[in-house]
Amino acid sequence: MADVRSATAPTQFLAVNDDRYAYRRFGGGRGHPLLFLQHFTGTLDNWDPAVTDALAREREVILFDNAGVGRSSGRVPAKVAGMAQHALAFLDGLGVATCDVLGFSLGGMVALQMAQDRPSIFRRMILVGTAPRGGEDIMHLEKPGLARHFADPKLVGYAILTKIFFAPTQSSQAAGEAFIERLMQLAQRREDRDPPSGPEVAAAQIAAFREWERFTGERFADLKSIRHSTLVVNGVHDEMIPVSNSYRLVENLPNAVLLVYPDSGHGSLFQFHESFVRHASAFLSSDSRFAPF
Amino acid sequence: MADVRSATAPTQFLAVNDDRYAYRRFGGGRGHPLLFLQHFTGTLDNWDPAVTDALAREREVILFDNAGVGRSSGRVPAKVAGMAQHALAFLDGLGVATCDVLGFSLGGMVALQMAQDRPSIFRRMILVGTAPRGGEDIMHLEKPGLARHFADPKLVGYAILTKIFFAPTQSSQAAGEAFIERLMQLAQRREDRDPPSGPEVAAAQIAAFREWERFTGERFADLKSIRHSTLVVNGVHDEMIPVSNSYRLVENLPNAVLLVYPDSGHGSLFQFHESFVRHASAFLSSDSRFAPF
Repeated sequence: MADVRSATAPTQFLAVNDDRYAYRRFGGGRGHPLLFLQHFTGTLDNWDPAVTDALAREREVILFDNAGVGRSSGRVPAKVAGMAQHALAFLDGLGVATCDVLGFSLGGMVALQMAQDRPSIFRRMILVGTAPRGGEDIMHLEKPGLARHFADPKLVGYAILTKIFFAPTQSSQAAGEAFIERLMQLAQRREDRDPPSGPEVAAAQIAAFREWERFTGERFADLKSIRHSTLVVNGVHDEMIPVSNSYRLVENLPNAVLLVYPDSGHGSLFQFHESFVRHASAFLSSDSRFAPF
Repeated sequence: MADVRSATAPTQFLAVNDDRYAYRRFGGGRGHPLLFLQHFTGTLDNWDPAVTDALAREREVILFDNAGVGRSSGRVPAKVAGMAQHALAFLDGLGVATCDVLGFSLGGMVALQMAQDRPSIFRRMILVGTAPRGGEDIMHLEKPGLARHFADPKLVGYAILTKIFFAPTQSSQAAGEAFIERLMQLAQRREDRDPPSGPEVAAAQIAAFREWERFTGERFADLKSIRHSTLVVNGVHDEMIPVSNSYRLVENLPNAVLLVYPDSGHGSLFQFHESFVRHASAFLSSDSRFAPF
């Protein structure tokens, strides 16, 4: 059934040199394959099926555990550049020379680095809730607005996600609860699941965020050479990676459209999943050399 | 013919109290009527038929000369508030209790003021290349980047629009030339045209921009009460009204989606008219209480 693909697609493993990468691949259609690059501590089991399965109706989607995450071998690199190298090695091993990409949060940074390291790897890019190198206020979990949620003993399991991925309005919180419900349904898959990420994954990824905030030379100048058609998406009240980072992306990427959602935070793509899938599909279906769709 | 409506729709005149308003009304379909509010010095003859006629396929569109512009009577008010009063009087005279609105540049400011003065007048709003009260760097034609075009004797007739409405790239300039060509075709309509705006129109509208830059109390707080579903659109390299004004709009309007186009200036809706019409149509066709479409 098309709408339970996330729940049934088997995890596959690919050996490349001394590494082993866990991934899931499902869906199909006339579109180019779409690589999903995941957020902070997220595994194969953290993608919202309302997004992955809907996009899988017109193309093959590839969910991927980067090194040290889920059931992929190795350690999490402490720099985005190392994660980009692993993702490129994975695609090479899979025999994918060019694909589209949806990078969310940390995954968007990895996508930007990959596009710079090897421009031919991507045709079109979707970057959600992410930041350019040299961006501001990237995933500072220690700031009061976020720390209070991490310190709240009542927020067990997925519950914290309604606080850190959604805005503090009734409508956004309701969307957050619907999102959690979809993840819970997915969790009824009892076998073949990834282990949740532990503190060592979090620590290395946080180190990568800190390194990504640093820049040398002219700030954001590195973006000007990334000419891919790009769709940048952000929730206007994103506390984890503020929307100003998406402003800087489209001001410096030469060929990027920006879509900002109201009443939403870091998880805007999950809150407005129907709208997001409609826009993402229209964007990915375009063959224009310009990003507008 | 559907695609020459702008070229053939007769100008009509509506008397309200001592004022006479010029307008054109054409198209039809299941959508709500869509009021077009025009930019600095623009008349009924300055709307791009690629936008008006395409949107007229699914709804009635109403092009409107505000007081003192084109063949409307009276003087141009020196404040946006005065323009909003005239537009409301016009709609009252026409018997339109609620409509959708597309406000471009100055027209977007008038739309915001109308929404505040009488919320019931609009169902959904599209605001392109505009700014909230208290916005920054609004139409400072004296700044070097713009003044050099106004001082250039080679830029006669419509030619200046390619410079001030489009970005200084080959692709944007080519789009600018196509836009001018569409306006020239429209100008083959030899009768029933508006006179071009003179310096007194420009002076009063510039005064209105200066007044609109001023604010009292908490900056942008007035936007929080405008709860209409709103689509905000801007070109990323807009020199006339910088894109930061659109950022402030969606950060403070509670229910507004932002769409930013790359490689474009003030006239982004004309440069990417196919994409703009597609998004505007989808947005206007939605009956959701949320802006995302």
